[in-house]
Parts: sequence; C-alpha cells; structure tokens
Amino acid sequence: MNMDKVNEDLVKERAKCTFNVEELTFFLDGGKDKTLERKERERVMLTKKEELFGGIPDEYLSHKEKYENSIRKAVILFSLLRKIQKENNTDLFNYRNLLSGVLGASISQDGSPFGLHYIMFMPVFMSQADEEQQAKWLHRAMNCGIIGSYAQTELGHGTFIRGLETTATYDPDTEEFVLHSPSLTAYKWWPGGLGNTANYCIVIAQLYSKDECHGIHSFIVQVRDEETHMPLPGIKVGEIGVKMGLNSVNNGFLGFEKVRIPRTNMLMKHAKVLKDGTYVKSKNSKLIYGTMVFVRVVIVFDSVNYLAKAITVATRYSAVRRQCQQKESEPERQILDYVTQQDKILSSIAGCYAMKMNAWRLWDTFNVINDQLHKGNMERLGELHALACCLKAISTTDSSLFTERCRLACGGHGYMVSSNLPPTYALTTASCTYEGDNTVLLLQTARFLLKTWKHIDSAPLTPTVAYLKTVSDPGFSDKWENSVEGIIRGFQIVAMKKISWCVESMTNKIMSGMSQEDAWNTISIQLVSAAESHCRAIVISTFNEDMTRAMKSMSPQLAEVMGQLIELYAVFWALERVGDLLQYTSISNTDVVNLRTRYEQLLRQIRPNAVGLVDAFDIIDELLQSTLGAYDGRVYERLMKEALKSPLNAEPVNQSFHKYLKPFMQGKL
Amino acid sequence: MNMDKVNEDLVKERAKCTFNVEELTFFLDGGKDKTLERKERERVMLTKKEELFGGIPDEYLSHKEKYENSIRKAVILFSLLRKIQKENNTDLFNYRNLLSGVLGASISQDGSPFGLHYIMFMPVFMSQADEEQQAKWLHRAMNCGIIGSYAQTELGHGTFIRGLETTATYDPDTEEFVLHSPSLTAYKWWPGGLGNTANYCIVIAQLYSKDECHGIHSFIVQVRDEETHMPLPGIKVGEIGVKMGLNSVNNGFLGFEKVRIPRTNMLMKHAKVLKDGTYVKSKNSKLIYGTMVFVRVVIVFDSVNYLAKAITVATRYSAVRRQCQQKESEPERQILDYVTQQDKILSSIAGCYAMKMNAWRLWDTFNVINDQLHKGNMERLGELHALACCLKAISTTDSSLFTERCRLACGGHGYMVSSNLPPTYALTTASCTYEGDNTVLLLQTARFLLKTWKHIDSAPLTPTVAYLKTVSDPGFSDKWENSVEGIIRGFQIVAMKKISWCVESMTNKIMSGMSQEDAWNTISIQLVSAAESHCRAIVISTFNEDMTRAMKSMSPQLAEVMGQLIELYAVFWALERVGDLLQYTSISNTDVVNLRTRYEQLLRQIRPNAVGLVDAFDIIDELLQSTLGAYDGRVYERLMKEALKSPLNAEPVNQSFHKYLKPFMQGKL
Repeated sequence: MNMDKVNEDLVKERAKCTFNVEELTFFLDGGKDKTLERKERERVMLTKKEELFGGIPDEYLSHKEKYENSIRKAVILFSLLRKIQKENNTDLFNYRNLLSGVLGASISQDGSPFGLHYIMFMPVFMSQADEEQQAKWLHRAMNCGIIGSYAQTELGHGTFIRGLETTATYDPDTEEFVLHSPSLTAYKWWPGGLGNTANYCIVIAQLYSKDECHGIHSFIVQVRDEETHMPLPGIKVGEIGVKMGLNSVNNGFLGFEKVRIPRTNMLMKHAKVLKDGTYVKSKNSKLIYGTMVFVRVVIVFDSVNYLAKAITVATRYSAVRRQCQQKESEPERQILDYVTQQDKILSSIAGCYAMKMNAWRLWDTFNVINDQLHKGNMERLGELHALACCLKAISTTDSSLFTERCRLACGGHGYMVSSNLPPTYALTTASCTYEGDNTVLLLQTARFLLKTWKHIDSAPLTPTVAYLKTVSDPGFSDKWENSVEGIIRGFQIVAMKKISWCVESMTNKIMSGMSQEDAWNTISIQLVSAAESHCRAIVISTFNEDMTRAMKSMSPQLAEVMGQLIELYAVFWALERVGDLLQYTSISNTDVVNLRTRYEQLLRQIRPNAVGLVDAFDIIDELLQSTLGAYDGRVYERLMKEALKSPLNAEPVNQSFHKYLKPFMQGKL
Repeated sequence: MNMDKVNEDLVKERAKCTFNVEELTFFLDGGKDKTLERKERERVMLTKKEELFGGIPDEYLSHKEKYENSIRKAVILFSLLRKIQKENNTDLFNYRNLLSGVLGASISQDGSPFGLHYIMFMPVFMSQADEEQQAKWLHRAMNCGIIGSYAQTELGHGTFIRGLETTATYDPDTEEFVLHSPSLTAYKWWPGGLGNTANYCIVIAQLYSKDECHGIHSFIVQVRDEETHMPLPGIKVGEIGVKMGLNSVNNGFLGFEKVRIPRTNMLMKHAKVLKDGTYVKSKNSKLIYGTMVFVRVVIVFDSVNYLAKAITVATRYSAVRRQCQQKESEPERQILDYVTQQDKILSSIAGCYAMKMNAWRLWDTFNVINDQLHKGNMERLGELHALACCLKAISTTDSSLFTERCRLACGGHGYMVSSNLPPTYALTTASCTYEGDNTVLLLQTARFLLKTWKHIDSAPLTPTVAYLKTVSDPGFSDKWENSVEGIIRGFQIVAMKKISWCVESMTNKIMSGMSQEDAWNTISIQLVSAAESHCRAIVISTFNEDMTRAMKSMSPQLAEVMGQLIELYAVFWALERVGDLLQYTSISNTDVVNLRTRYEQLLRQIRPNAVGLVDAFDIIDELLQSTLGAYDGRVYERLMKEALKSPLNAEPVNQSFHKYLKPFMQGKL
C-alpha cells in the first residue's frame, strides 16, 4: 500500500479552503507559543511511537491483557510527562492541558489507570492536606512515587453524598481512626485506578468521634503494600469489571474490615480531630468546592476534545466517501454535498467551537472566583457552582449527542472500532453521569435560578443572571428579530419565563398544602427545562461575545468564517427549540421559515471550509487513531490494514471449525 | 449470598400492581398458547443452561476467544432449534419468532455468527432460486449442512446498490461466470458469519454477458471447502475487526480474483442467463422486494425486543435504587418516585408498547400485500415499501434513543456491561444504519409521499396515506383538541402541510432553473422531517386503534392501564414535537400547558404499575442477562458477584506491577 499520497478529494477540499488553517490552529491553542509547546510535547511522545502505538490494537485483547497493556503504556507516557514537567516549570494551565488535552486522553482510546491520580487525588490532596501532610506525601505523589485514587461513591450511594455509609471512628486510646464498611452497599465502587493499580487512596467516610457523627470527611489510606503491592490487612480491593468504555481506567471497589489508620491521616487543612477526639470545625467549609468546580471545568474541556476528534473523523470521511450518482455520466457524489449530511456535520463543528469558547470563559471565571474565595469573598460562589453545573451538563450532553450523530453519519463504517468513533462516544457519554448526573446538576442550577428570581428586586445580580432583570423589565421590547442577538434575547426570555413559571407554580403548590419537596419534585421536568434554556442562552451569548471579540485580531478571511459559525450555532439551536420560542417569544411562523432558509444558506457557505475547520484542530494521526479520519483520507486502505491485524485473520481456519462447526454441519451434534 | 429472597421494594411494587400480569403476558405473546410455546422453547434451552450461560462472561475474553465461544454456543443453540423445528411443523410466524424473538437474540449479548444464514441467506435463496437450485441446496441449508452468508455491501458502496463494483462475467465457452473484484473498494464488507464461519454465500454482482451489463444479480458461491474449511482458490476472505457491538456476528470481507462458478449458480427464478449467454429479463422484477421488506419487518420486531430488555432493566433498577432523603428521619427515596425519572422510564415503556402494536400491524400488512404480489397485484407495493422504510427508521431510532435514555437513567451502574444496557444499545443503534440508513429510508418514504400528494385528486389513496385527503379537505375543521384523536389529527395536519410545502418548494425551485436532483437535495432536511411526522401519525394512530380494539377483550383493570399508555405516548410525542404543532395546527399555548399537566398526571397514574408493565414481557433472567434487572432485584449482590468473575480479580497482584509499575514508581523508568 502506497501511503504517501493524500486522497485527491481531500487535496481539493484543502485547496478551496478560504482561510489560513494555521492561523486558526494558533487561535485554538491559545497562541502560537502554545501551539509550539503542544507540538513539542507531541514530538517527545512520538519518540516512543512504536512502544505506544505498535502491536496488536487493544480492542483485540482480553480484558486482562488490555489492563496490562495500559499499564505498560501509561508508564511510558507518564515517564515522559514527568520529564516534561521537570524541564518546564509547569503551571496549572499546562497541568490542565497535560491532563485533559488531546495528549493525555488519546494514548489509550479508553482512558488511563493513572488518570484519577492526577485529576482527583492530587488536587484534593493539595487543597485539603495540612502542611505536615503535604510535606510527608506531596513530593512522592507528584513524582508518582505513590499512585493514588479517590474513593467517594459507594455501591449503593452516588448522588446523595450525605448517605455514604463508610465510617471512620476515632479511637483516642490508640490515636487512630477505624475505617469500616458496615454493609455491601457501603463498598466503594468506581474509583479509577483503584482496582489493581493504586497503592494509596483518599477515602470519604462519615467521621465519628466521642459517639457523635460529624458528617463526611477525607482520609488518606494506604491500600497496598509499597513493596509487594499486596492489599493490606482488612482491605478488600478489586476491579469492578468491563464497562461500556474507559476499560483502561481500572475502576475498582474497596471495602474495609475495621482498618486502623493514624489520626494524622485525616486531611486536616480545614476540619480537625484533636488527639483527645475533640472535633474542630472548618472555618471555611466552602473552600472545598473549589476542587469540585475544577474537575467540572476539566470535564468541559474534555468534552470539547472528544467532539473535536469525532468531527475531524466524520468531516474527513464525508469528503472522501462517495454515494449515488446525480446523473448517469457523473461519478458518485461526496456525501458531504448532501444537505442532510451537512446538517449533521456542520452543526457539530459549530457546537465544538461554541463549547471551546465557553470552556475558556468558564476557566477564566473559575480562576477569578477561586482567587476571591481564597481571599474570603464568597459572593460569587453560588453563581460559579450553578454555572459549572449546567455547563458540565450541557457540554457533555451536546458532546455525546453530536459525537453519536457524527458516528451515525459515517454509516456502517462508523460502527467499526477502528474508526475510533465508538470509543469516543463511550468516553463522552460516561461524562454525562460521572461527577454529577446531568439531570441532578441541572436541578442544582435551577435551584440557584429560582432563588435568584425570588430576590431579583432586592439583591444585585451576578453577571450570568443579569439578563433576568433586563428581559423582565416592563419597558423591555420583546419584538422578535432574526439575528444572533435576537436569538440570544429569545433564549433569555424563554429562560426567564420558565423560571418565573416555576417560582409561581412552586408557590401555588405549597400554598395548597404540598410540601416544599413534593412541589419541587412535581415540577422538576420544567425545572430541568428552565435550567437548560438558561444555559443555552449563556452558551450562545458567550460564543458570540468572545468569538466576536477575538475576530477583531483575525484576518478578514478567518473572521468571516467564524462569524458564520456563530450564526449557524444560534440558528441551529433556535430551530431545535422552536417550540419554546413559539410559546414564549413573539417569533412568527414566517420568522421560523426564514430561519430555516438562513440555516440552509449557512450550510452552503460553510461547506467549502468544512475540512479546514477540522484540520485546524491539528489532531495528529497517532492521537486521532482513526481509519476513517486520518489526514491522508486513505479510508479503505486503512480499514483493510486494520482488519488484517485481527488475530482471527492470522490463520485461514479457526480451530472452532474442527471442534464444533464441522460436527454440527454434519448433523453429529 | 442468599439469592432466594426478592428485594422487598420489588415485592411491594408487585403487590400494588392493579392488573393481572399474566393476562398481559398472554396478550403480548399473541395468546396463551403462544406463551406456552415460548416457555417450552425456553425450557428446552435451559436444559443446556450451564453450557450456554456458565463460565467467564464473554466480555472478559479476547476478540478471538469471543468468536470461538460464540461458535461453541451457537452450535449448542442451533442444534436445539433444529430439534424444535423438526418436532413442530414450524411456520413462518414461528420462524420469525425463533429468529428475532428474545430467544434468538439473547443467547449471546452480541449477536450470532449464524444469524445471517437464517435472516438473509435462507429467505433470499427461497425467493430467488429456481426449482432445480432449491432441490440441490435448500434441504442442506435448512439443516445447516451448509452455512450461508449474504454479500451485497462493499467496502466503498452501501446505500447506492447500482454502484456495486463486483462483476460476474459470463463465459459461454465453459458455461461459467467469472466473479471478480476490480478494486479494493469492490471487496464485500460486513456480511455476518462470512469472516470465519460460512462456507457458502449469496453474492450480489454486476452481471455481464455478451459485453453488456445487465445490472446486479444474485449468485450462490462456495467460499470455503466443506471438508477442510480452507478458502477456495481466488477467494480472499477474512473478518473485518472489532465493532461497537455485534462482535459475535463474525462480519467478514470477501474479494474475488477471477473465481469461476457454474452458470447454474446464478439464482434464476426470475432473470436468467441461457447457455449461449442470452440474458432473459425477469417478468416480475419487483417480486424481490418481498425479502427486503421481510427483513425490515424483522428489524422492527427486534427493536421492540431490545427496548423491552432495556426498560425491564431500568424499571426494576429504579424501583430498587434509593437516593436522597426527603426528610431527615425517612429512608432514601426510590428513584422511580422522582418525576424526572418517571419521565425517562415510563415514556420508554409506552414507546415499547406502541412499537409492538405497530410491528404486528406491519407484519399483517406485509402478509396481505405479499400475497397480492404473488398473485400479480402490485398496487400496494409502493405503500408497503414506504411504510416499511419509515417504520424501520422510526422504530430503530426510537428504540436506540429510549434504550440509551434508560441506560443513562441507571446512572453509573448503567455503564457496566453486566447491566446488559451497553450491549443492548450497541445492538439497537446498529440497526439505525444497517439494511438502509435511516435518513436515506425516510427520504424514500418522502418520495412516496410527494408522489401521492401530487396525484391526490386523481388516484385512489391507499390506507396509510388516506388521511392526507381528509385533513386537506376544505371542509375539514382544524380546531385543536387535547385528546389522543386530536393529537393524531394534529400530526396528520403537520405531515400534510410539510408534504405540501415540499411539493410547492420543489416546483418553485425547478421552475427557477434548478435540476430535479438539486432541488430535492436543497429541501432534504424538510423532506426527512415530513416523513417523520407522517410516520409518527401512523405509529400513534395504529397504537390507538389496535390497542383500543384489543382492550375490548381485556379485563377492565388491564384495559385501563393500556388506555393510559396510549394517552401517555400521544401526549409525550405532542410535547416532543410541540414546535411543529404550534407552527402548523391551531393548538394554543394554554393547550400546551394543559398537555404538560396531563402528562404529569399520567406519569403519576402509571407509576404504580411500572414494574408490572415490564414484568409482563416475562424476559427470564438467563435471557435478560442483567445484574441490574434480574427478577429478584438483588442488584448489589449481583454487581459484586459479576465483578468477582473478572480474571483481574483472580490474583491479588497483577504481573504488570513487578514488570512496569514498581520500577516506574521507584523512578527507574
């Protein structure tokens, strides 16, 4: 197979791109220097190309072999990371990039057994361990001298953290905590890396001292011997089995049979237990929200990265794949020329760009508010929490829906694991339930919105909800306008009216004798829907504001295309939620018809730049890992080449023929 | 673990069910005798329980081991089937049940390597082989003396069958056809069982004789030696690699290097090639559509069965799982009591019942029209084709969306393969692209609808489109009514207006100089949307009509619940498509608010019967294969028991610790 040549349809697509792809890549990376940094990290990684990407692909291995291979590869990768970290003074921005950037997520299609060490164990430890504890463990943890996991969720308890069953009972005689799992449902379940990999773990347990329960607290617990890796006495640890995806993550279970740990293993930066068992409350119990929000920010970035992969694959494949002649004499048509295909692909591209801008904004907001938090200013914590909740929910939901749409748009071949679309979907759909189920998170945002609405006249409004005042002002004109700003206003009006309906409805139900909880439950479908509309208003308006600002420093060619993406995104969601707009705004049927026409025009305008828009993500083939999406577009050669790696193709006749099939066919079974 | 006891929440749920579950089971099976037949088939199968369901679960095996295990199990299963078939004079109804019933689909979570033999090879052979050919092969094929596959799709060609590249060129000198794959994209790709299992195959190829191409025809080709199973000379055969699901199906590729087969291997019931190479056209080329429609009917039944599994799992789990206290003193609440959960689960239950009634109706329609076809009456073929296309598209789309909703509604545990939800999703989403991509199928239906609309005044309307005349009649009152009938009328009006818009729009575009094809492409998003609305109108109205009729012979208790399901389904879809209704019907905002209230009331009414409604499907644990969904609801014990089967839990320390992890942690790598 001659793999030098690029598929000629892709060559043509690239030739007709109207903007400079590199300019867009620099923008997406956050500047030319960041692109160069990323490329340097990739270069270092590719020095181990054969070890990381050679051999029989993971999907052909058994569950156990996959684990062993993932450890082998993780060790190579994280040794490189350790080196890069040492060489460069890595700040939090780079740390986040290392973690959730395409680099970290892609070596294994299916997650990493070290992931939780970096994403949960380290940040939680850094924010909750006191100085003594940091001195003792931090350096070792940083260098992977120990590998940690984070054990919160239990077999019977997820969302409702107060319901966790694991207990840590203080024994002043020995100055120890006794960790115990009182039932099967108390077993920790899900922590990444815990199955067979981690030797330490942060465990969340109900703290008991002097016969009193003080609620959940964090403890650092050694689970395996550092020399032999054997589970320590009283520790029941293992892995939880095969999942839809994330099978290299080595998720584990953990049970305690009265396991004793020193008092000093409780993370005591905030709350403390003194030697005699006296419990000292945290002065600022809200500081620990910082880590939770940090993780959700990382998830929003992840969802952008997953979607960027899916659209890269689907777009390039749609340029290469041909189907149906328009006229007898003509060749079959590129499927990217079908409007139904453009609808699926280009709206996903716009969605990816929109969420990227929102991830950046969330990151900035997080940094600003986190700084205020550490200075004792709690004012915007509620807003940050509500924003991170709904953005996590919407970004992961969108990302998984768009990824799956892209996969289905690739027809049968999108079902092949070698396309990398099924594993990408498995990763992105997982994030819809982990770190807060999306329905639960939207209800959290709704709670904040209802509270805000109730005090709208008395309290000052924080930035993300300021619109509620504007659009509910009696002097506000609700005249519909078919423009990006008009659509944003439309979503704001929808959100405001839904929120106000919910508040009114709650009040009525409570007045008629319903409990607060039952009233909340009764209208919860509407609460979720209000939070969604609110979040969509934010996403569109952030995309519009921040991209429009950025466009001022772009070449006119690029700025034009970015403008089209903003409008496509706004119009797409207006049409998706046209029922809301018709109910709550003054949009007319004619406006809707015009929006549909505009949508089709925008598809036509963006179509020639589709390949350029995904090329700009600059995901190298080794990280994209897709037969359908490689830069050269040699789809069919790659599909066949990958198939030939199947061990079932290594011998002409499988042994099961002689053992089972032949006797069966001959009627002997 | 004491597995005798049923979870007490499930006991309570069953106690409060208001109808007789067995009565519903008999109805769902098609009568008490059918239930007994099914149970007898299950009993026979369970005589091999240990061989079929024991051992390490498939998900822990390597790809190759999975294949070998699937052959072992398929041989056991199909030996039993062969026995049952011999003992009972199996008719087509039972044949379909054997194939697509819960029995066939469930032995392996991931499909069967013999599936295509039964579902494509046999039916195509029976309908296209002439008497001589049937005499030669049919008996052997029936008894699995040979195993066949069906090879149509090629690496570069799916939807556009006329574009297939494989050639069959007649050589009158030797009275043979020469099969050839002129390029890589001509390789057959996807046929089930072809990889390592089948020894025969029906191959679709472009027929050339006397230097003329006569389009695609079917040929029976031996691909492997019957004794040794070695691929025959010139045959390139192998398996295509790991997929998102269906990994026990052994999908294969197949290429020909000038392979010669006898003239008599062309299936000649319809078209023929005489010894001298003279091509004789089929008298009735449309008869072969029968098989295509049959397969789509089977797919609709499959999609019901998959969804029945998913809702059984999600409903039982939601009754067992508890989350969040309403009050400090109370236990946590069953998640099925949350309205957002009811929304996800109960709408899926209604969707499953609705599609079941539609599958039956389609089956009846198919039988009636197929009979007419064989009597030479082609009148309703277009309608049948259009109906099967859109029902296949809508039932598989709904089934996969609802299955995935159910999976996500089970939170993290729904991500475990042992829940059987991920494999069920993988099966149902596959059916969205195979046997006709859903977007393409909806466009086929749209083509029929536009044609119908154009001749609405001149030609008599067949039953499924008769409503177009009614709702477009100038005397028709479009007053909105919040009832099932009102909603059905609403969807019919929406469909009619979209269709008429499309016709008008096409005409305008063509008048302004656009080609027919470009005009079609330009409005294709609207065409798809018109076909969807049309199909939804049919699905709701069929559910309503046929279930209402059936309710007359049901006990009042059961009939009441069935009535609630009909209304829930209608209201659910009205709210899902409220944008359409607001645009095209006279529904008011107040009507919409009332529908929402009614929806919430219906959720409350159906809630106590949720478990009864899924118990009635009577899917035994061995076929449900779900830790979360077993009849006894012992969710946590089963999750742990399954996890302990993981080979990674068989030894306390995995070898990779010594090999990679320890040196890495000690900084030696």
